[in-house]
Amino acid sequence: MTAQKLAAVLDHIDADFDNSLQRLFTLLRIKSISADPAFAADCEAAAAHLANDLATLGFRAEVRPTGGHPAVVAKRSGEAGAGRPHVLFYGHYDVQPVDPLALWTRPPFEPAVADHADGRKIIVARGAEDDKGQLMTFIEACRAWIGVAGSLPLDVTFLIEGEEEVGSKHFAAFLAQNKADLAADLALVCDTSMWDPDTPAITTALRGLVYDEVRITAADRDLHSGLFGGAAQNPIRVLTRILGGLHDDSGRVTIPGFYDGVKDLPPAILAQWKALAFTPETFLKPIGLSLPAGENDRLMIEQVFSRPTCDINGIVGGYTGEGSKTVIPSQASAKVSFRLVEGQDPAKVRAAFRAYVTERLPGDCKVEFIDHSGAPAVSLDWGMKPLAAAQAALTAEWGREAQLIGSGGSIPVVGDFKRVLGLDTVLVGFGLDDDNIHSPNEKYDLKSFHKGIRSWARILAALAEAPRT
Amino acid sequence: MTAQKLAAVLDHIDADFDNSLQRLFTLLRIKSISADPAFAADCEAAAAHLANDLATLGFRAEVRPTGGHPAVVAKRSGEAGAGRPHVLFYGHYDVQPVDPLALWTRPPFEPAVADHADGRKIIVARGAEDDKGQLMTFIEACRAWIGVAGSLPLDVTFLIEGEEEVGSKHFAAFLAQNKADLAADLALVCDTSMWDPDTPAITTALRGLVYDEVRITAADRDLHSGLFGGAAQNPIRVLTRILGGLHDDSGRVTIPGFYDGVKDLPPAILAQWKALAFTPETFLKPIGLSLPAGENDRLMIEQVFSRPTCDINGIVGGYTGEGSKTVIPSQASAKVSFRLVEGQDPAKVRAAFRAYVTERLPGDCKVEFIDHSGAPAVSLDWGMKPLAAAQAALTAEWGREAQLIGSGGSIPVVGDFKRVLGLDTVLVGFGLDDDNIHSPNEKYDLKSFHKGIRSWARILAALAEAPRT
Repeated sequence: MTAQKLAAVLDHIDADFDNSLQRLFTLLRIKSISADPAFAADCEAAAAHLANDLATLGFRAEVRPTGGHPAVVAKRSGEAGAGRPHVLFYGHYDVQPVDPLALWTRPPFEPAVADHADGRKIIVARGAEDDKGQLMTFIEACRAWIGVAGSLPLDVTFLIEGEEEVGSKHFAAFLAQNKADLAADLALVCDTSMWDPDTPAITTALRGLVYDEVRITAADRDLHSGLFGGAAQNPIRVLTRILGGLHDDSGRVTIPGFYDGVKDLPPAILAQWKALAFTPETFLKPIGLSLPAGENDRLMIEQVFSRPTCDINGIVGGYTGEGSKTVIPSQASAKVSFRLVEGQDPAKVRAAFRAYVTERLPGDCKVEFIDHSGAPAVSLDWGMKPLAAAQAALTAEWGREAQLIGSGGSIPVVGDFKRVLGLDTVLVGFGLDDDNIHSPNEKYDLKSFHKGIRSWARILAALAEAPRT
Repeated sequence: MTAQKLAAVLDHIDADFDNSLQRLFTLLRIKSISADPAFAADCEAAAAHLANDLATLGFRAEVRPTGGHPAVVAKRSGEAGAGRPHVLFYGHYDVQPVDPLALWTRPPFEPAVADHADGRKIIVARGAEDDKGQLMTFIEACRAWIGVAGSLPLDVTFLIEGEEEVGSKHFAAFLAQNKADLAADLALVCDTSMWDPDTPAITTALRGLVYDEVRITAADRDLHSGLFGGAAQNPIRVLTRILGGLHDDSGRVTIPGFYDGVKDLPPAILAQWKALAFTPETFLKPIGLSLPAGENDRLMIEQVFSRPTCDINGIVGGYTGEGSKTVIPSQASAKVSFRLVEGQDPAKVRAAFRAYVTERLPGDCKVEFIDHSGAPAVSLDWGMKPLAAAQAALTAEWGREAQLIGSGGSIPVVGDFKRVLGLDTVLVGFGLDDDNIHSPNEKYDLKSFHKGIRSWARILAALAEAPRT
């Protein structure tokens, strides 16, 4: 019965795909950049658009305020009586800033299907993958089930936030305030990647994140380097000297206590990872690199999946326009982030970083820190039953065994789901390493979008029949 | 006879001062920012305005092309027959960029007279001092002489360039091409500072300048730090590590060979400098600092006047907007300049810097350098006769002995005058350390402008009667 329905749903997805694409384009045209206050109204527009769309599918949908950009909560439950499994699906409508705009080959909010150099069809736009394209795979799967079968095979609550790209600052509080309304058996997230373009994956380990901005001030005004150079402290010199010491020659982070609590991989996992074809040739060459830059006594796959890191994500100070200006600036600042692994405490890492900077600050300089986000690493239970059901559904759709993988990225909400709502999460996504998320020319493979919708249609059916935990 | 004429000229300057101020304002309203190609037409407008103005004073004035922004050449000679002394006056009409614009208390190209916190009247605008205000002191002195006496007391050629703030790249070639037309006995420059607000000064030593931009590229695109962090090289990390090592703990520049050729001060000069009231209290406190940041075994006055320096004038890479973005950028760049002293070869310093960076570059990174300017240090002959005449004229105007001083700044054209035209230069200026040149809220004291005009009127008279070298 369900198998027949599923077949009809999958056929409908294929037949309706052009319309699915147009609906994604409509969402991609909304400039919902959460990091820049100038786009706050666009964020509200994205939330309203999604709530309206879900309402047309029979969801009880609302745009709800948070301390920042609003969230969408939409529920379709109880239609087949009580007792069905209930999933809470999470996605985010906000996107990254688009700078440097000059590097985009087309306007970032005018989505189009284009031809990749290697012949793949791709959807190009900011958010094409992260996370609008991924989010829409699930919405379109629900639309197909409702259109074909008249109902979903299980109860579904949507929770779509607008602050994922700026650290989900208000998310935990929102979960706590709306706890009763968000009750479910399991959380689903579509914001991760495939193993490779042909092999689906479920992500079962995520690194945490601490993101700090550091701003150093020396003189109370910009100075002329001819008049003051030599005697006046230069905050760029101070900043580069401090940040330039964050790594030692072996690629290890030098902040005292940074590695406290970090465990080595179990030998079995390490052996398994060694067997994977994860090499500079496959991972770095496509982005123009060849040498792993992390701790030089670790496998590259450890550097990316299981070791903590420190990256300077931005730096600015003094004159940065064309030509030259002989200025000693008053201020210089940098954005510094840390990917954390299990065992590391975000609060301790942040405190250790700030102490490191403060202790190295020369007299005459002041430092300010801005907390942009913090979340611990998350490790999921590899034995969870719904995970096996989802894995089987993915394997059926793609014709290849779905892999259980770690991810270098951070999805802090997963920890919040466990802590606040008591929910385990299954992370399924259809991104690829070359999607240029957070970069110019973000794309999502047309195949990812199409088979992503089909995958979710299958997973919904599978979860409806699987044990709940 | 000349003394009577001079008295009448000085009276006329006082009576006509409001008009002088309005003429300066007209020049200040032109946005002649040489560093930014968007203002190229404004640079041309400034040149045309000055040529027209000088033509109304009876100068044979022309706007002449260079390889970059045009120069103004204007000559008034031979009117009292052959044989009079001939001075070549140099100034520049181009100004520094205005960013960060948000820190200006009024629009930078809408000049106004304002009250300084300590009661001084000041002219506020980009270029108010550097160099439009200073340049106009000389033009207004000529205007007064011509208006009162019908002629100048000696022959004058103006050479006003538009690329001083971007390194005067085409200047030496322009001098060579126009050599015959620029023949004179002596060069005069008005682009330097007073000793203090009450004490005039002639600058007799200038540091040289090497200005390089360094751009480091790692991956061929921006990357997501969650996916690639740990394994992918980060060019900001590389840049901060290299630049952070440019100074050692004692404030000394670490580039091998940087100090080659640098001599210690003669003991007599060192003793004289030690006696000057040049202290952190007087020099650094007004800008919010207290600790000299240069080589810690040198006097602060040495750090500023006679020791070479290295400053990072700008740095940028990755995400620098509001909030956070977990990006590993493809590129990061910095603008680095060196103030040179006698004995240092700009070409060798540039090569040593580039070697220093290149040798520290990890595999997978590329580096590009952009040469923004280079000029050796200049030391003037303290025994030059016209210098003594100018010193006496300044002393008469200000009622205090004019000081002969070094300057930390660089005026590369002075070396070009000597090398290409065989001319010595007398550097007289009325700037003050708190003029915020190259910074927001640039200003010029109204007193500097007024007494600057009077000073030049006196100097012209003095030079007309002084021995020529």
